[in-house]
Amino acid sequence: MTGKLTIVGTGPGNPGQVTQQALGAIAASDVFFGYGPYLDRLTLRPDQVRMASDNREEIDRARAALDAASKGAAVCVVSGGDPGVFAMAAAICEAVEHGPETWRRLDIEILPGVTAMLAVAARAGAPLGHDFCAISLSDNLKPWELIERRLRAVAEAGLVIALYNPISRARPWQLPTAYKILREVLPVTTPVVLGRAVGRPDEHFIVVPLGEAEHHSADMATCVIIGSADTRVIERPGMDPLVYSPRGSG
Amino acid sequence: MTGKLTIVGTGPGNPGQVTQQALGAIAASDVFFGYGPYLDRLTLRPDQVRMASDNREEIDRARAALDAASKGAAVCVVSGGDPGVFAMAAAICEAVEHGPETWRRLDIEILPGVTAMLAVAARAGAPLGHDFCAISLSDNLKPWELIERRLRAVAEAGLVIALYNPISRARPWQLPTAYKILREVLPVTTPVVLGRAVGRPDEHFIVVPLGEAEHHSADMATCVIIGSADTRVIERPGMDPLVYSPRGSG
Repeated sequence: MTGKLTIVGTGPGNPGQVTQQALGAIAASDVFFGYGPYLDRLTLRPDQVRMASDNREEIDRARAALDAASKGAAVCVVSGGDPGVFAMAAAICEAVEHGPETWRRLDIEILPGVTAMLAVAARAGAPLGHDFCAISLSDNLKPWELIERRLRAVAEAGLVIALYNPISRARPWQLPTAYKILREVLPVTTPVVLGRAVGRPDEHFIVVPLGEAEHHSADMATCVIIGSADTRVIERPGMDPLVYSPRGSG
Repeated sequence: MTGKLTIVGTGPGNPGQVTQQALGAIAASDVFFGYGPYLDRLTLRPDQVRMASDNREEIDRARAALDAASKGAAVCVVSGGDPGVFAMAAAICEAVEHGPETWRRLDIEILPGVTAMLAVAARAGAPLGHDFCAISLSDNLKPWELIERRLRAVAEAGLVIALYNPISRARPWQLPTAYKILREVLPVTTPVVLGRAVGRPDEHFIVVPLGEAEHHSADMATCVIIGSADTRVIERPGMDPLVYSPRGSG
C-alpha cells in the first residue's frame, strides 16, 4: 500500500493568502508534518493528526513524512510562504535522493504558495518590479564568504535583493554586515523595506534609506527588500509611500 | 468622490492557485482593467465592466485605471501571476509618480499572487531551493547589454535563474543567446526546466540539460528555470524526475 505526500505553503500568514488548491490538499490529508507555528495556522478535524517539530529539524521531519507516506498515509508537509523558497520542498527532495529506493516511487505533489517577499513587496508598492533575487542570510548550511560574494555580485549587477532569514538570536551580526557590504556598492539613499507578518494584526512594516536601515529591528520572520539604485519612493499625504522599481531599470 | 484601485494577481492560470483575498477583491470591484486573456479568466457579474487592452499598453492601461478610480469607481487591475513581478503594479506606480497630484491621494491596494516561477518550480521539485533570481529577457525597456551582464553575474555567483518573457515573435534570438552566455559559465549538464501553463490542460513541461535546451520550444508564457552547478536531478521510475537545488549549495 502506498500513500501520497503533498507539500503545501500556507502563505505569509494572512489566511486570505492561502490558495484554494492548498486548502483542498489540507482537507484531503491524514497526517501533518511541519514547524509548530505553521501547523497552528491550520484548522484540522479531530481525525487529522499533527506531527509538529522544531524549525531546525527539516531533514528529520522530511524523512519522517516520507516514511509515513510510504506506509500508506495521505501526508501533508506544511511550510509557511511557498514550500519551494527556503522551505520544505528542497529538504524532501534531498531526503528522497539519499533515502531508500521506495521513496522514489511515491506520489509526491508540491503546491506553490505566496512567498514572503511577494507579500512584503505588495504592501510596499512594486519594489520587485524589475530584475531581482532572493538570498538567504543564514550561514548554517553555506559559508558566509559565499553569501558576501553573492551580495556584492547582485548589487553590482543592479538587481533588487530580497533577504530571507536575515537574523536570529544565534546569528545577530549577519544583517548589519550585509548592510555594510551593500553600502559599499549602493547609494546610502537606496530604499530598504522591512516587512514582518504583513497583513496580520502584529504587522511590522517600514521603509528606510539603506544608510539608516541598521537602526531598525528585524527578526527571523522579517523579509528585507533592498532596492537597486533605480528604485523610487513616491511620498503620499497621510499614507505610507509607494516604493517601486521601474520596469525598464538599468 | 474618491474610489479605490486594487491590483490583483490571478496566479499562473490554474483557478485553484488564486488566493481567497484576490477573489474577494474581484467580487468587490466595479470596473476591470487588464490584458484580455487575463480578464477572460474571471467570472464577472453582469454589473461588472471589462476594459480589456493589449498586452503592450501597460502605461496607458495604468493611467486609464487611475483615472477611473479618481472619478469614484472601485477599480480592479488584473495581472496574471503576481502583480509585482514583471506585471502591472510597477506600471501603476510609475503612472502615479508622473501623474496628477490627486492620484497620490487614491486608496491603492496591491494583493500578492503566485508568480509563474513558483508554479513551475513546484511542478519540477524544488529548483529554487537555494539563492535564486528572476530576470526578464525582454529588451523592450532595458538594453540587451545589461541583460547579458546580469546573466553572467548571477550565473558566476551560483544563483539559480528564472527567466521571464524569454521569447516572442518580435524577439526570437534573446533566449538562444542567453543559453549561449550561460553555457560559457555553467556545465552543459546543468538542469533546465521549461514550464508553460503549468496545472492547466494545455500544460507544457520538460527538464533538459543546458546543452540541449535550445532545441526545445518556448514562448512568451514559458518560464525557464536554469539551475546552478549544484542543482540535482533525481530520476524516478515511470514519473518525471525531481529537480532540486540543495538548501546549502555553494
